Amino acid sequence: MDVNEIIIEAGRILSKRYFETQIYSVKERYHLLSKIDIEINEFIINHLTLMYPDISIQSEESETIQKQANRTWILDPIDGTTNFIMGNPYFAISLALTENDEIIEAHIYNPLSNEYYFANKDSETATLNGQVLNVSNTSEIDEALIAFGYSANMKIINQYYEQWSRVFDTCRKGIGWVAPALSICNVARGRVDAFIDTGCSIYGQSAASLVLKKAGGKMYNNEFDMYDYKTKGGIFCSERISNALINAIGKKKTEDRAQE
Amino acid sequence: MDVNEIIIEAGRILSKRYFETQIYSVKERYHLLSKIDIEINEFIINHLTLMYPDISIQSEESETIQKQANRTWILDPIDGTTNFIMGNPYFAISLALTENDEIIEAHIYNPLSNEYYFANKDSETATLNGQVLNVSNTSEIDEALIAFGYSANMKIINQYYEQWSRVFDTCRKGIGWVAPALSICNVARGRVDAFIDTGCSIYGQSAASLVLKKAGGKMYNNEFDMYDYKTKGGIFCSERISNALINAIGKKKTEDRAQE
Repeated sequence: MDVNEIIIEAGRILSKRYFETQIYSVKERYHLLSKIDIEINEFIINHLTLMYPDISIQSEESETIQKQANRTWILDPIDGTTNFIMGNPYFAISLALTENDEIIEAHIYNPLSNEYYFANKDSETATLNGQVLNVSNTSEIDEALIAFGYSANMKIINQYYEQWSRVFDTCRKGIGWVAPALSICNVARGRVDAFIDTGCSIYGQSAASLVLKKAGGKMYNNEFDMYDYKTKGGIFCSERISNALINAIGKKKTEDRAQE
Repeated sequence: MDVNEIIIEAGRILSKRYFETQIYSVKERYHLLSKIDIEINEFIINHLTLMYPDISIQSEESETIQKQANRTWILDPIDGTTNFIMGNPYFAISLALTENDEIIEAHIYNPLSNEYYFANKDSETATLNGQVLNVSNTSEIDEALIAFGYSANMKIINQYYEQWSRVFDTCRKGIGWVAPALSICNVARGRVDAFIDTGCSIYGQSAASLVLKKAGGKMYNNEFDMYDYKTKGGIFCSERISNALINAIGKKKTEDRAQE
């Protein structure tokens, strides 16, 4: 099995579990979800360990397995657990490979819709099922499709709104989404012009950030600072829309500020 | 071709178009979306007309075709167009059959995830891919998974929050979703405890309302009034959670009010 095959096989299990989850109390549902999370996690970790005994593994669902080598897998067995549990097939397995803290390979796979995103440090492009990806060419907020990383929590929605009110109020369409890896990939794919998420973890963003980079996208941390996949949250967008976003919140980009 | 086969074949076209939509300006994306909407609409209407020449057809995408008979198809060729355009595979084809204004058959099909919901007036149950559906047994808001029918528009989010603040603030997890037919079906399936949508049209809710009814669910219009699928918006939930929702907003149910 190569990495693709491991991910696809894990996806097959995840897909089967998605259809099995016909349980009627919330406690049972969350218990089952966490069992599935662990099952997928173990399946992938066991196969990766077998094939790549020298590579460390850092997962959202288990303690880090530390090896001597300078390479680490970063795994999110289910990106978008809320969607999984609530019956929305917008979730994925996300796996990044880092070397000396640089992301060098990315796999994001939604087994329900059969969407497999891939990027590699040495290739020119990122792909979805083999098709080359490009970010959109949208440059104005009023034409933009924007995704925000919140669910229905008014305190958090208001925090987003405080910073992004001009984008909320003028974008062509905005929506709240809770599967960061796929949402970043949708920016890479040109279907979404920006994904703004103040809370996404290293697990949700690491693999997808390489896909977006190879598709010509831009990434920042929350205050339009220099991007680091280890920092919580981020702004993921095309270069063209990034200027409009910066204007909308009245910020200057890091590089502009550095020049002053 | 029977109705199932028409829907599945239309789904195959929709799925193909979903993967083709690699277009980088918003105008082009919306133009393409509307072309696809019309393509699916025409495919389904042409086949239904051929097979059922006496049944009227009312679709979101075209003028009503009026026949002599007392039966009408109600069609939404893409429920969840925002998700379709933004790369989220949470969308469906929705088709209801009415007889003297009563819904007697329902088909909701997500071709990406291969989820086919079906219900029939004369059967005891509703099904997802042949599996019998039941609503959840959640009775408390703080255990509930709730979906609201809004996107990222603060004016509209605030309208929801004004009425539903206690649910927003105390539910286990809430989220904004924009594919009403599938979201109502997820209530029927017991994955979501309530779906609250002030804006969904007859096209989004008619088929799914029969699925929910056969799965043991409850439906109301926006003020907990008697349900009518022709009225915009609705509250779709299990019986057990409906009492908690009514308490949360301090309303009395229609039947209670009628008794006073």
